[in-house]
Amino acid sequence: MMDSEILRAFTTYAIIVILKMMLMSPLTSYFRLTRKVFANLEDSKLVSPILDKALVRVDPAVERVRRCHLNDLENVIPFLAVGFLYALTGPELSTALLHYRIFAGARIFHTFAYILAFPQPCRALGFMVGLLVTVHMAFRVLGSVLLL
Amino acid sequence: MMDSEILRAFTTYAIIVILKMMLMSPLTSYFRLTRKVFANLEDSKLVSPILDKALVRVDPAVERVRRCHLNDLENVIPFLAVGFLYALTGPELSTALLHYRIFAGARIFHTFAYILAFPQPCRALGFMVGLLVTVHMAFRVLGSVLLL
Amino acid sequence: MMDSEILRAFTTYAIIVILKMMLMSPLTSYFRLTRKVFANLEDSKLVSPILDKALVRVDPAVERVRRCHLNDLENVIPFLAVGFLYALTGPELSTALLHYRIFAGARIFHTFAYILAFPQPCRALGFMVGLLVTVHMAFRVLGSVLLL
Repeated sequence: MMDSEILRAFTTYAIIVILKMMLMSPLTSYFRLTRKVFANLEDSKLVSPILDKALVRVDPAVERVRRCHLNDLENVIPFLAVGFLYALTGPELSTALLHYRIFAGARIFHTFAYILAFPQPCRALGFMVGLLVTVHMAFRVLGSVLLL
Repeated sequence: MMDSEILRAFTTYAIIVILKMMLMSPLTSYFRLTRKVFANLEDSKLVSPILDKALVRVDPAVERVRRCHLNDLENVIPFLAVGFLYALTGPELSTALLHYRIFAGARIFHTFAYILAFPQPCRALGFMVGLLVTVHMAFRVLGSVLLL
Repeated sequence: MMDSEILRAFTTYAIIVILKMMLMSPLTSYFRLTRKVFANLEDSKLVSPILDKALVRVDPAVERVRRCHLNDLENVIPFLAVGFLYALTGPELSTALLHYRIFAGARIFHTFAYILAFPQPCRALGFMVGLLVTVHMAFRVLGSVLLL
């Protein structure tokens, strides 16, 4: 199945953005453990059996990472589906690569902009570029396979 | 790859529900900007450098759009995976189209019911119909390919 | 398309973890209805037209199920994408089955650990095993198809 160069290109960038997205889980755990901020009593009990209840709380830095993770779900997953279907429509390899590279770059930039709280419109720019790449591919796909 | 009519039908409806789901992001931004309700200090600073901290707050209308978006993630993404695997099992085109059309219609109705706060059980109905279509396809797929 | 045994194995386990993930929606509804805790006024109005506003509130048990559901989205969906691309690279059937089975087992265990609040590190273990299986497949895929 992986003889197609376009499918290989998609797969490469898909794995890159998935791994980036999955990195948000350990990053959340890191913030929770270093700041001692937990969502569940059984988690805080492991870290501090005495303070347990007091550590079940909300922290702005943890919430920031969680919002970044959710934003990834909202954008990376549509890219995975659209990018795959787009690859199946047989576009030019160079055109497909351009879409995939810009998307991956935009989302990596978006993550830094979110976690490090760059002044706006940095994060908005990363978000918009990723969104437009996905929407552009979506309309290309619709244009070539439409069957309602 | 896109010679199969069933794959073209799936692709068409997949793109429709993905675009619908992605629309929730700009809709959230629209509510945030018009109601001046932000999740990050760097966002509110761009809109109002003086009031900045006061605008980092929670608003019921914004939370409603966000819940609708999350509900889409919870339902549209399983549909994408199940609908694609279902297409690969080679069902009748008319049967597959029926599943895809009902799902897309149910989710579009669900979105209006959620955002415009239709009285229940409107939204519950849209949700249930979408869920049942996906679960039905899931069992059809399991029945034809089971390999544990 | 479903002649490949590896694709059939992936499909089977994909459907299992998707159905498990989708179960979280009715479980949330069950907790909301039995505990009379709602996120929307139109929902609480259906249950109690008099108390309506008082029932729009947050409850720890409901939030626990919602966090479990979100954790599924964050982990099961990357597995679906990576597991499918991994199947396309043509691994040994027994190796692929091992990955799929361990992932499905880990996520089912994770759900029980989360909902029933098993003492940590039970849930962390289920989470980590699932994450490592997906990351391991991701690197196997990258190693065999890399095209940047």
